[in-house]
Amino acid sequence: MALSTANSFSPSLSTKLTSKSSDSLVRFQSPNSVSLRSSSFVSPSSTELNRSASAVLSASRVASKICASAAPVMDQSVSEASSKVPTIVNVDLGDRSYPIYIGSSLLDQPDLLQRHVHGKRVLIVTNNTVGPIYLDKVTDALTRGNPNVSVESVILPDGEKYKDMDTLMKVFDKAIESRLDRRCTFVALGGGVIGDMCGYAAASYLRGVNFIQIPTTVMAQVDSSVGGKTGINHRLGKNLIGAFYQPECVLIDTDTLNTLPERELASGFAEVIKDPSALAYAIKRSCENKAEVVSLDEKEGGVRATLNLGHTFGHAIENGLGYGEWLHGEAVAAGTVMAVDMSYRLGWIDDSIVKRVLNILKQAKLPTAPAETMTVETFKSIMAVDKKVADGLLRLILLKGPLGNCVFTGDYDRKALDDTLHAFCKS
Amino acid sequence: MALSTANSFSPSLSTKLTSKSSDSLVRFQSPNSVSLRSSSFVSPSSTELNRSASAVLSASRVASKICASAAPVMDQSVSEASSKVPTIVNVDLGDRSYPIYIGSSLLDQPDLLQRHVHGKRVLIVTNNTVGPIYLDKVTDALTRGNPNVSVESVILPDGEKYKDMDTLMKVFDKAIESRLDRRCTFVALGGGVIGDMCGYAAASYLRGVNFIQIPTTVMAQVDSSVGGKTGINHRLGKNLIGAFYQPECVLIDTDTLNTLPERELASGFAEVIKDPSALAYAIKRSCENKAEVVSLDEKEGGVRATLNLGHTFGHAIENGLGYGEWLHGEAVAAGTVMAVDMSYRLGWIDDSIVKRVLNILKQAKLPTAPAETMTVETFKSIMAVDKKVADGLLRLILLKGPLGNCVFTGDYDRKALDDTLHAFCKS
Repeated sequence: MALSTANSFSPSLSTKLTSKSSDSLVRFQSPNSVSLRSSSFVSPSSTELNRSASAVLSASRVASKICASAAPVMDQSVSEASSKVPTIVNVDLGDRSYPIYIGSSLLDQPDLLQRHVHGKRVLIVTNNTVGPIYLDKVTDALTRGNPNVSVESVILPDGEKYKDMDTLMKVFDKAIESRLDRRCTFVALGGGVIGDMCGYAAASYLRGVNFIQIPTTVMAQVDSSVGGKTGINHRLGKNLIGAFYQPECVLIDTDTLNTLPERELASGFAEVIKDPSALAYAIKRSCENKAEVVSLDEKEGGVRATLNLGHTFGHAIENGLGYGEWLHGEAVAAGTVMAVDMSYRLGWIDDSIVKRVLNILKQAKLPTAPAETMTVETFKSIMAVDKKVADGLLRLILLKGPLGNCVFTGDYDRKALDDTLHAFCKS
Repeated sequence: MALSTANSFSPSLSTKLTSKSSDSLVRFQSPNSVSLRSSSFVSPSSTELNRSASAVLSASRVASKICASAAPVMDQSVSEASSKVPTIVNVDLGDRSYPIYIGSSLLDQPDLLQRHVHGKRVLIVTNNTVGPIYLDKVTDALTRGNPNVSVESVILPDGEKYKDMDTLMKVFDKAIESRLDRRCTFVALGGGVIGDMCGYAAASYLRGVNFIQIPTTVMAQVDSSVGGKTGINHRLGKNLIGAFYQPECVLIDTDTLNTLPERELASGFAEVIKDPSALAYAIKRSCENKAEVVSLDEKEGGVRATLNLGHTFGHAIENGLGYGEWLHGEAVAAGTVMAVDMSYRLGWIDDSIVKRVLNILKQAKLPTAPAETMTVETFKSIMAVDKKVADGLLRLILLKGPLGNCVFTGDYDRKALDDTLHAFCKS
């Protein structure tokens, strides 16, 4: 069981400086396990940023970035969460800082949402899977005891394949037809696709309105709702059009996971779900880990890129198979195995790490190889438009050194990449 | 001749505080004329912002915001401009600050552009009117002595009616097909439509890449290239989808105005064009005026809204007639007359100001009333989705008090608005 062991994760805050200038290097030490999520996986403890020496972490700076209002001891935060007192993780981004509320039954506490609603008009953006279950509940939370607020909603088709400009326009159409003005608030109610689209719509509508995230899937709760990446896909690549745009708050009601289909949970994670205490804690730690990195590098100039371990291979799988065929988490799992395989071929890690990653993903019943229809050529052509390409060079996040070290680099032997692709593809 | 008299504009930097909380109030004193441009028209010298007392101007703060490298005396800056040394207006926005270069033959000075190009790849966004005249020249300026830089271009159809999502997608398509990465630079070559679309594309492509503005129309040079407003139209309203996004630099080569059609110049302004000295000076003063306001209120929380005098009426005209039928400047001219008329009906200004505005616009051969096909209902329904609506209330920029004072307010007698609309519409 991966995420629950995050409890024993103990970040080392030592700073390491090297003279290399072209890579960003992140190291973490002695986690007891590799989790499902790359945000836990690469939790940085020491960094080297190529852009600015001032971005290098110091222990005190990292410590000050994370201010969880619940105590870090599992027993306490968990008992609070299960008794409706939310755990709060603050994402520290100066005047764009915001809180993440985590716990059960939070949608029954209208004040949590209402304190972040500006103006009198709200637009809930959801999909035809989540909407029928939670739209009324969220509408009630927004309006109970607050009759001045009126709520509109737009229900989009569910799935990654609808994360496109045509679907985004439905949000603008609804907002404009409803005559929402600059003081309105958009609310994203759903998984990562809804969060990304609603966030980008909020960033662009009237050049920017407030928005709130209510993520209802595991992936959205531990990852996509944290950090302000918003956007849509282009037919040639994932998330190529978008904005960095931060929400007013993120509200994670862990009860919403109870209605998730089995596949979205991944079986290994399902065991955590049964324990509300472990669940709230696992989500909190994942959010903290990601918030720590995001607060240091909001616009992904360096260290934030390391959160994308397995994503370049994973995005190619999602795009190559057709958006929505594989879930994002499934594709990233297989992509992580490929990145680890390539790191091993480069001689940068020993095989114990390879085995460890495979083992943890298998326990979680996630795929450890791409679908058989993926070819070397498909991978190459899609990866060529990845956002991490710089001046024509594909940069990758790879593991290097003892468990806990990773690099973001374009400085690697091309043969290792070729060998990895051929090892995982039949043609 | 309007803009050339900006020479005699002498801003008063006194600060005026009032107890009113719902309006933003801007006052300027003793300009010798009202210019074509609202950015000159409402040049603020004292302000009241409702959001934050700290936003109130002090004389020293305003003075420090503008740093023109050429001396403010007309003779000198003008002789510099005509001898190829650009006048520079710096827009002070902290880490988003950028220079505006103004002068003739600036496209013959490759260094001006090249110093602001990051990475090795450039995408020029232009249209089928400007492209055939200047694309080769700009490509040469970007690449001369700089063989590492490669230039792509996308040529969009010319006109406001193409400022939409479908046309914007052509920019993304080209960028992605050309495999441009995060280190690329977008260059907007054209008028306000190209600048707005290219800027929004740059803001959104890979969540933000660098861009440069090369405005080639009077309106773009004195207005739309300054301040970072980017975006596209929705069928229901102008500029409803976009971003605040600042360029790396703005390069205004005044020679590009020589190829403008008569209508784009407006006849009154044509006389200034004949005098390169007056021209560079008029553009510089307009940019300075706008830069001053933008640097105080980048995201239009208060005082920046006053730059939009006449725009709510004007946007309704542009949309109501069909985008592109009237030029933006024509619609804003008629809209300004309507705003002034309404201010007079409210008893807020005396009729000498009404006459003065009419006189100056007539001299410039700009329209002083909307097209005859505009109806009261058309105005009302389009103005209802204006970005300046807040909590259902339409706020307008209106003149109030002696020449030099204006307000941004929703606190006015609705009858005056009705009377103005009926006075200017046949039905």
